[in-house]
Amino acid sequence: MKVWELHPNEGLESLTREERTSPSLGPNDVRVRAASLNYRDLVVARNASKRPAGSAATVPLSDGAGEVTEVGAAVTRWRVGDRVAASFFPTRLAGELSDADHAKALGGQVDGMLAEEVVLPSSAWVRLPEAYSFEQGATLPCAGVTAWHALFEAAQVRPGDTVLVQGTGGVSMFALQLAKAAGARVIATSSSHEKRARLISLGADHVIDYTADATWGKSARAWTNGRGVDLVVDVGGPGTFDQSVEALRYGGTMSLLGILTGTAGPVNTYGVLYKTIRVAGIYVGSVAMFEAFVRALDAKGIEPIVDRVFAFDDVPAAYDHLASGAHFGKVVVRV
Amino acid sequence: MKVWELHPNEGLESLTREERTSPSLGPNDVRVRAASLNYRDLVVARNASKRPAGSAATVPLSDGAGEVTEVGAAVTRWRVGDRVAASFFPTRLAGELSDADHAKALGGQVDGMLAEEVVLPSSAWVRLPEAYSFEQGATLPCAGVTAWHALFEAAQVRPGDTVLVQGTGGVSMFALQLAKAAGARVIATSSSHEKRARLISLGADHVIDYTADATWGKSARAWTNGRGVDLVVDVGGPGTFDQSVEALRYGGTMSLLGILTGTAGPVNTYGVLYKTIRVAGIYVGSVAMFEAFVRALDAKGIEPIVDRVFAFDDVPAAYDHLASGAHFGKVVVRV
Amino acid sequence: MKVWELHPNEGLESLTREERTSPSLGPNDVRVRAASLNYRDLVVARNASKRPAGSAATVPLSDGAGEVTEVGAAVTRWRVGDRVAASFFPTRLAGELSDADHAKALGGQVDGMLAEEVVLPSSAWVRLPEAYSFEQGATLPCAGVTAWHALFEAAQVRPGDTVLVQGTGGVSMFALQLAKAAGARVIATSSSHEKRARLISLGADHVIDYTADATWGKSARAWTNGRGVDLVVDVGGPGTFDQSVEALRYGGTMSLLGILTGTAGPVNTYGVLYKTIRVAGIYVGSVAMFEAFVRALDAKGIEPIVDRVFAFDDVPAAYDHLASGAHFGKVVVRV
Amino acid sequence: MKVWELHPNEGLESLTREERTSPSLGPNDVRVRAASLNYRDLVVARNASKRPAGSAATVPLSDGAGEVTEVGAAVTRWRVGDRVAASFFPTRLAGELSDADHAKALGGQVDGMLAEEVVLPSSAWVRLPEAYSFEQGATLPCAGVTAWHALFEAAQVRPGDTVLVQGTGGVSMFALQLAKAAGARVIATSSSHEKRARLISLGADHVIDYTADATWGKSARAWTNGRGVDLVVDVGGPGTFDQSVEALRYGGTMSLLGILTGTAGPVNTYGVLYKTIRVAGIYVGSVAMFEAFVRALDAKGIEPIVDRVFAFDDVPAAYDHLASGAHFGKVVVRV
Repeated sequence: MKVWELHPNEGLESLTREERTSPSLGPNDVRVRAASLNYRDLVVARNASKRPAGSAATVPLSDGAGEVTEVGAAVTRWRVGDRVAASFFPTRLAGELSDADHAKALGGQVDGMLAEEVVLPSSAWVRLPEAYSFEQGATLPCAGVTAWHALFEAAQVRPGDTVLVQGTGGVSMFALQLAKAAGARVIATSSSHEKRARLISLGADHVIDYTADATWGKSARAWTNGRGVDLVVDVGGPGTFDQSVEALRYGGTMSLLGILTGTAGPVNTYGVLYKTIRVAGIYVGSVAMFEAFVRALDAKGIEPIVDRVFAFDDVPAAYDHLASGAHFGKVVVRV
Repeated sequence: MKVWELHPNEGLESLTREERTSPSLGPNDVRVRAASLNYRDLVVARNASKRPAGSAATVPLSDGAGEVTEVGAAVTRWRVGDRVAASFFPTRLAGELSDADHAKALGGQVDGMLAEEVVLPSSAWVRLPEAYSFEQGATLPCAGVTAWHALFEAAQVRPGDTVLVQGTGGVSMFALQLAKAAGARVIATSSSHEKRARLISLGADHVIDYTADATWGKSARAWTNGRGVDLVVDVGGPGTFDQSVEALRYGGTMSLLGILTGTAGPVNTYGVLYKTIRVAGIYVGSVAMFEAFVRALDAKGIEPIVDRVFAFDDVPAAYDHLASGAHFGKVVVRV
Repeated sequence: MKVWELHPNEGLESLTREERTSPSLGPNDVRVRAASLNYRDLVVARNASKRPAGSAATVPLSDGAGEVTEVGAAVTRWRVGDRVAASFFPTRLAGELSDADHAKALGGQVDGMLAEEVVLPSSAWVRLPEAYSFEQGATLPCAGVTAWHALFEAAQVRPGDTVLVQGTGGVSMFALQLAKAAGARVIATSSSHEKRARLISLGADHVIDYTADATWGKSARAWTNGRGVDLVVDVGGPGTFDQSVEALRYGGTMSLLGILTGTAGPVNTYGVLYKTIRVAGIYVGSVAMFEAFVRALDAKGIEPIVDRVFAFDDVPAAYDHLASGAHFGKVVVRV
Repeated sequence: MKVWELHPNEGLESLTREERTSPSLGPNDVRVRAASLNYRDLVVARNASKRPAGSAATVPLSDGAGEVTEVGAAVTRWRVGDRVAASFFPTRLAGELSDADHAKALGGQVDGMLAEEVVLPSSAWVRLPEAYSFEQGATLPCAGVTAWHALFEAAQVRPGDTVLVQGTGGVSMFALQLAKAAGARVIATSSSHEKRARLISLGADHVIDYTADATWGKSARAWTNGRGVDLVVDVGGPGTFDQSVEALRYGGTMSLLGILTGTAGPVNTYGVLYKTIRVAGIYVGSVAMFEAFVRALDAKGIEPIVDRVFAFDDVPAAYDHLASGAHFGKVVVRV
């Protein structure tokens, strides 16, 4: 079968297209039809050159969807032809995350979804929303579940709440759509005039140009008549933290899930305690969260924002496109 | 000023229209423009004859809205002309309910809203949604806040959840509207063909005739493909409890808030533990909940279902209409 | 190997001592050293005669402890010699309960622990507290985990809270010990003078004779200076429900987990809503709860109250003893 | 009456001992018998010189206890002779904190407790634990309520949990005592051999010298057999944040409440999301939390750690002693 592999080389040379023998049947065999890229996949690829020389190649990407082609003898949950996506952490069914879950995260230390066939335990798969194409389904596991976790597991978004999302990446677009589905008002930030216009067409109630307005958090709070927003979905990390604090109301929640501005840096810890803010660290989620997320997509008919679909042979171009930051929504690969 | 009073007499004789001197100014003086009736007001009126002979007359009704006509010297929260409604429990700002709060519940042991002028502490009033008439505003304090509490304080309704509401009274209609605003699916029950049709036009995803279908709870669960509903807003009490349990999923919540079938009776306690159900007793709510509810009404443009508006002189007819059960939504009195 | 079996016969004839071939190795093989009885096991045995004639015999009892004698090739979690107990629901690791979990509950529709050897999946076992004998370990899975769930998962017992426990069965004794370990005050009820004295020696702060005091709930509330207790661990069901409501404070929790007075009956639903009480149905718990419970037993050195240990051949006498209600704490069988 | 005042001057000159006329009676008049100092009072005093010249003098200190000497006509909650302490935020009864609450924080922008008499609204006072002296009672409002909030409102400490506390200041000592009362294990850090010995005598299960062990967080996690601690009570802020993250388990909570190492600085945000940590900002608490805290102190007979009691005339020495960092527990002033 066809796969892409990540090798301990520099830059795009780390990615090579290879042939592998199909995996022998474990609990489930799924033919992958589409995969999607996340910022995390850029980080993994960039760090590939730091791997020890001679270390085994791995198949990249956590996100993929396809159809069940064969099931193990003891499997009752799936039938051939079922349309499914894999959970980012195949072993995290419910409950707390663990070191063991991290070690099994798809497309990290172990093989991911950029392959024609993938075998994972029966409990790792989640049924796709009914009307979804495989390309749409492939957008859900990382960005979608992260957004669900941020809004409805770490926080409790209710009608009348205000949610702030940052930029136009995959997590932020799912967060925008889910927040609107839950009856909330949404403030979105973008440095691009065109993207801000599109954010409004997608339902954003207010947009802010964060390059023109360095104190965009304060402006967001002002837009709420001074009360502050109930939830910030922070994809920036240290570089956005302080304005996220500015934006929040007393007792509000910051769902902290991104590293776009780095993994560490100076932040205003006093603001967190002064306003009794809850900062909730989020790293994707569990199979149970994924299933609840799919129920919401089905009930509300939410369709993911797909920026562009690349052919399997054009994977390097897909990485480049994501790295450029020009995308709006998800970057997908058809397998 | 004009008021209606409740005396310790039998039946509608307990209600009389009287003149009182206007209250002297406490923290706030509000001119009441409209009031609304709840099932609880029928119960209060029916129990009036049990009061000791010679006991003081009280002004009935918990629900009313109007405009501020005068404010106490120390009040900064309100200005003359502000449009407000009073909280059912004027002393319950946040935190747990108490005996003291119950003793101050409007239209119970103390005077309520069926009067031209009412004076209550500054902190007891809540601003009306911006676009609301006084008639609309008067529907909120009891039924509306109860529905909010049931869906978003005792439970956490999320997009994709399924909520079951019973009948077409005030609480159930607010619950239907709020559940839809939060992205949930709604199952509604009614014995009337016309009302079921109207429930669908209001957004109900599925309706059940509970007179024709004695195991309507089981049917509701079947409609969710056997998973069960996430929340039941139980307005019946003992007579509906068991089917509410049947309807629920494992770990689901029953918001228990009504006494339409009585205050006590036989129920299936084993079902509660077998499915690890959470039964949440609800008695209206706090000022803080009322304020969150108004934010939701404003954000989503939700308008209350007003069944009929009666003139101030027709209060007995308004009580009769509510008692008949023919209403769909709220019964209002214009003051 | 030696087992006891439950057959579709009347009374104690339903229980017979048999020889079976040892189970073939699945993920883990554990040599059972002790088992314990719960009220649920009486119910299962009493209902045995209702099974269809010719239906397969099952091994009774959910609770047992022993040592690992053999592990499957893929198992990394356990080693031979590890001292473990099985979870009541072997398939419920975390998250919500399900029909599938109920179907696999030990000693119900499937074989339980009253056998010399038992094989269950690796994830179903939980390590015993370090200093425990097997007899002590065998008391934990049903009664102990239920008590943990009641106090720390369905509620949040904190220092200074008051907890009410009913009678001297296994759940109530664990609840008493855990509540004291968490810094709470405990009110306990018993109809026996001797048992009340023993309850006090175990740390109960106040005892009530529920046969002499029909309104023991009201008395419990009076003992808290009228505030009401924070949590009732209700093992009675319909027959104790109303006094449990009487005992509780506004916003308090009733952990409803027992059927000693039946599975259905008349209860005061109005009291639940008047005081905004939370009734939490509880049916044992998950593997994750069991592990948290063991951490608490280890940290506080809590030892279970073992009433009496029976030999393997005396199982019928053990059942009789439990049925008599004369026990104080757990009834154990040494295997 | 005698008071100390804070003026817009440099250093200890900002503090002067003055005579004021007794306040006229509002809802309650309380004769203060003792007050206590917190780190926050040092910050307030150090910032006094930044106040505009000519700005009004204020009475410092948030913490004080005394007896009711006179009550307003409408007050039913208190009687003359009742022993009480004032809440840090007199206006925050329950629910979320607000700008308005901050503006009324005692000893900040408004007069505090370092005076012979203080008048505050009836609802701002909390009854002292029964056996407490006024000196003991004066230690509770800021440090004690903060510790309660950190352990039982922002988190849920349960028997068997592990809690990490930092240093030997007032909050950390209350946190140690409360964690032990709740059945938890406690790890404490101190750079002083003598203080570490005393921490163990107070119940700490493990102590770490953070000056000798720069990766004390990692060491703390190792002590839990690699699982990580359930809660860190972080009094340091940016300088301790990263090791607090190291210490925590997946899904653990950091109660972030201190500024001993500053109000902003570089922190590891990636660690927060990698382990799905919850960072809960804490700023003292509400009247309702204070009351729950007192119930715990009463139930467990917990006595505050009083380092030293100064006479009213020796207030500058009390400030100096606190600033030296030599104290263990609370620094008190007898009024």
